[in-house]
Amino acid sequence: MTVPPAFTLDALAAFHAAGGSPAEVAEAALARIAAWADPALFITAVPPEAVRARAAALAAEGPRGRPLYGVPFVVKDNIDAAGLPTTAACPDHAYQPAADSPAVARLLAAGAVLLGKTNLDQFATGLNGTRSPHGTPRNAVAAACIPGGSSSGSATAVGAGIAGFSLGTDTAGSGRVPAMANNIVGLKPSLGLVPTEGVVPACRSLDCVSVFALTVADAAAVLAVIAGPTPTDRYARAAPAGWRAAPAPQPGWRLAVPLDGQLIFDSPDDAALYEAALARAAALGGRIARVDIAPFLAIARRLYDGAWVAERSAALRGMLTEKPDSLHPITRGILAAGLPLLTIDAWEDFHAAAEARRLARVLFAGADLLLLPTAPGLPSLAELAAAPVAANSRLGTYTNFVNICDLAALAIPSGYRRDGRPVGLTLVGPAFAEARLAGLGAALHAAAGGGLGALGAAVPPPPAPPALAADELPLLAIGAHMSGLPLNPQMLRHGGRFLAEAATAPAYRLHDLGGRPGLVRVAAGGVAVAGEVWAFPAAAIGPFLAEIPPPLGFGRVELADGNAPLGFLCEAAGAAGTPDISATGGWRAYLAMKDNT
Amino acid sequence: MTVPPAFTLDALAAFHAAGGSPAEVAEAALARIAAWADPALFITAVPPEAVRARAAALAAEGPRGRPLYGVPFVVKDNIDAAGLPTTAACPDHAYQPAADSPAVARLLAAGAVLLGKTNLDQFATGLNGTRSPHGTPRNAVAAACIPGGSSSGSATAVGAGIAGFSLGTDTAGSGRVPAMANNIVGLKPSLGLVPTEGVVPACRSLDCVSVFALTVADAAAVLAVIAGPTPTDRYARAAPAGWRAAPAPQPGWRLAVPLDGQLIFDSPDDAALYEAALARAAALGGRIARVDIAPFLAIARRLYDGAWVAERSAALRGMLTEKPDSLHPITRGILAAGLPLLTIDAWEDFHAAAEARRLARVLFAGADLLLLPTAPGLPSLAELAAAPVAANSRLGTYTNFVNICDLAALAIPSGYRRDGRPVGLTLVGPAFAEARLAGLGAALHAAAGGGLGALGAAVPPPPAPPALAADELPLLAIGAHMSGLPLNPQMLRHGGRFLAEAATAPAYRLHDLGGRPGLVRVAAGGVAVAGEVWAFPAAAIGPFLAEIPPPLGFGRVELADGNAPLGFLCEAAGAAGTPDISATGGWRAYLAMKDNT
Repeated sequence: MTVPPAFTLDALAAFHAAGGSPAEVAEAALARIAAWADPALFITAVPPEAVRARAAALAAEGPRGRPLYGVPFVVKDNIDAAGLPTTAACPDHAYQPAADSPAVARLLAAGAVLLGKTNLDQFATGLNGTRSPHGTPRNAVAAACIPGGSSSGSATAVGAGIAGFSLGTDTAGSGRVPAMANNIVGLKPSLGLVPTEGVVPACRSLDCVSVFALTVADAAAVLAVIAGPTPTDRYARAAPAGWRAAPAPQPGWRLAVPLDGQLIFDSPDDAALYEAALARAAALGGRIARVDIAPFLAIARRLYDGAWVAERSAALRGMLTEKPDSLHPITRGILAAGLPLLTIDAWEDFHAAAEARRLARVLFAGADLLLLPTAPGLPSLAELAAAPVAANSRLGTYTNFVNICDLAALAIPSGYRRDGRPVGLTLVGPAFAEARLAGLGAALHAAAGGGLGALGAAVPPPPAPPALAADELPLLAIGAHMSGLPLNPQMLRHGGRFLAEAATAPAYRLHDLGGRPGLVRVAAGGVAVAGEVWAFPAAAIGPFLAEIPPPLGFGRVELADGNAPLGFLCEAAGAAGTPDISATGGWRAYLAMKDNT
Repeated sequence: MTVPPAFTLDALAAFHAAGGSPAEVAEAALARIAAWADPALFITAVPPEAVRARAAALAAEGPRGRPLYGVPFVVKDNIDAAGLPTTAACPDHAYQPAADSPAVARLLAAGAVLLGKTNLDQFATGLNGTRSPHGTPRNAVAAACIPGGSSSGSATAVGAGIAGFSLGTDTAGSGRVPAMANNIVGLKPSLGLVPTEGVVPACRSLDCVSVFALTVADAAAVLAVIAGPTPTDRYARAAPAGWRAAPAPQPGWRLAVPLDGQLIFDSPDDAALYEAALARAAALGGRIARVDIAPFLAIARRLYDGAWVAERSAALRGMLTEKPDSLHPITRGILAAGLPLLTIDAWEDFHAAAEARRLARVLFAGADLLLLPTAPGLPSLAELAAAPVAANSRLGTYTNFVNICDLAALAIPSGYRRDGRPVGLTLVGPAFAEARLAGLGAALHAAAGGGLGALGAAVPPPPAPPALAADELPLLAIGAHMSGLPLNPQMLRHGGRFLAEAATAPAYRLHDLGGRPGLVRVAAGGVAVAGEVWAFPAAAIGPFLAEIPPPLGFGRVELADGNAPLGFLCEAAGAAGTPDISATGGWRAYLAMKDNT
């Protein structure tokens, strides 16, 4: 048994289930760090002996149901991990955190193995990965290109196969641009979904902890571990019930894409790969609709020109005024520009942001997701060096508006240019639409091919949607509410999802109550009746039931497979005297028989 | 038949139902305006002939189900009403609006009769009512006292009995302090619940349209008319389903009050009347718990010292820089102070506000409502003139934090000091808790007595809660889920509310399935079975049903009174062979019989 080449959660779980040890995985991770030999990757690596000790301790305990048991990960060095300094890539800012940030604490509790704190654009200010006194992490798939930033090391570590996943942060796109640059997945959660306590503030009101992973399923699984408010996080928000539900891409999903001419690309290949991604989305059943994204491109430009740059300055005002030489020159220049800004001007930005959020609400009232290029293109290190501010700004063209507009986003690979540079697609949705992003994202990622990071391994097929989400109940339909029949729209309107065809236990009789069927359990002489099991939002069961006239109601129906979902039942007194159509085996067969007679 | 002395909605509806005409009500309102003879009340009155024409047109149409048919109202002159200038009490700011603001449009569509645009503290900056070039509206109940502001005229018009209700605005307390000053009700809705389009901005991000009325029920009814987003309002928010539900005060409601020593009062009478209000709340069943309100008092002080004063300045920067002499001197001084403020300092305010909102979430996780004095006390005109800024600031002690913390509030009268000055209580709740505020507020207002405004009429008893809220369904319980029986906590946990005892139609048989009853409809030989109708949250029906084992389910149960709520039904096959206990008439009687044998 060998350690899996790609540290996906499924592969590692299978390895451990087959008797493999976290110690072997940790040893492989340490070997990969050595082989990768990038002195700019870590700001502080966990000492190998400490990694081994952690893995050995885990191995001694066994999985105990922990979802990230033995999975190696890295953390951007602006997020606290107890025992390691937090520097934000500014040595003079270094401090020893008293505790893990909530996200790191939750990952460790879930069994993951921390390898170290990774390099970043200083104070998470930048999208390119070169603004660090510790050098520039090597791009995992295109060595001549920037690694992307600001979460540079966290992305290259995953792309290079060293870590199974990593934490970044994302204020302007720092969790998405590096995903594109390293051919991996970057999930930028909704504002307030993951606690930002223990994170060095950039724009505190907009900062998000983000997740890099090789697959969409892994990013979603890591998010499920780290999400949820702490009582002490002032920017925490309670997610609506059901946000974790992970739907598969639904035929008919409305996919918004920009109007013709609203996009800029670095090359024809970048444009062609975006169009190819849209074609794959359409092939999956999505309905493409053009929308005007000009207001979003406009608000994006305010992120570094207006009030929010002063938010960065405010977070570092002491250093800016007292120790400016401690700052990277470009970072210093950006942050110093925020110091003299006036609040009366800031309010113009805030009112404009409110208008942009309104327009986003309008957009997502008419669309399920917005599909954008992750960036116009990936610059080489030389191109970035030639225009360090302008090239960086261009990288944020399609990312900067997302947090200001209170949206969630998922960056996935969409192939390579002919010159070998990776290209990315970003799915954008409203706050707490992470499940929708993951549903389509996993399918699009699999359809794109292109391998996992630098590993060459094939993108796994998207996971089957769970039979039932936590906020759904199974409901057996046996009549006109079944797929394609006249009352089926009622099921869809209440949020029902078809799961499977099914048959009852042979304990029922079916009646024709006059255009609708009645299922009655009987003590003897029952037959199996065909039906469909649907996943139904628990909260919609009551309103749906209120629309169902007597003698029908909902109760437990025993299925041939032993399950007992809720289902349509008929009062025996209401069925008495009506035609018994049990011999047909089900309503659909009965309708077909009637049509033929 | 005479026009009612108090223009409450109930009284006017009864008058109209008995054949009275809106024309008579309008004539009475015009006569009251003339008799009140306050030249500082209106900035622009609707001409009497136009009021008469509107009333005549309404009379010709009839009520047509309009909830505010023929009710006279006034509007603060910072809210657009087509055909009348909007001035914000600054003649140089006057403009002719092209359209009604959404709130005014909805009130007119609901049949209300506009009497005019009322005086205010210029640009809604102030809580006292004296900062206007048009003079100070006369307090309706204590002529030597300030009328409160900034919505001064809107409050005095209701207190004096001229208008049945009025619109104000509330950023810092302008919808609450004047309610106290005039012995009326002031409802400050949640941010974003009522559109603020067509409102002259004060702090645009915090401004709310508010409602003054004689009774809590009337304020809630007016809010129901004006609430709801428009697609074009950037600060609109969608209210959660069920926000309109109007519960009666619930025994056991947890009522937070400040720690000893955290409150300041102008006089011992102010303090005693606050304590008396708390005693009434306890007598209604509320459980009083002390909480630390220091963080809220602290954030309140930032409203006029920090970023938000610059928001006011930003809204008027043109006038401040080009025509400063057009501004009231005190208003100009306040607004000019915002011009030089730095954005880096504003972020300190915003992060502090986020922390205060977090603390408010913590508070309201442990309490249903917070009960505060509306203000430390009501100053006389002379006292205000002696300290125009300090006395004004003191008025905002308990109001300024509410909008910053994203809360809703309801100011109600709580009696008079021995020197004749009115005193008020304010109920504060989380966003979209308006129904909870109204439920307790109506009961407390009735318990306080004290009359309606200056009218002397008794405060009506609180309205009975509606049998069913829009998001509830009726559910008949016939077994151990009934009140006081072992499974009743399951009903309460799902949010059920007892409504009434009931009996089924004589069409059922009741069985003892072995410790729980089974109700089965029968074609013949049925009896009436006793049960209880509960109001059940529609969204909880499904989760509740999922906990009910077969052979029980939910279906329609026909009641003796002709209604057919959802209820517990038993599959006939599941009841077969079990004891038929129909002769007992119901589960409770059956249990009693068993206990006696």
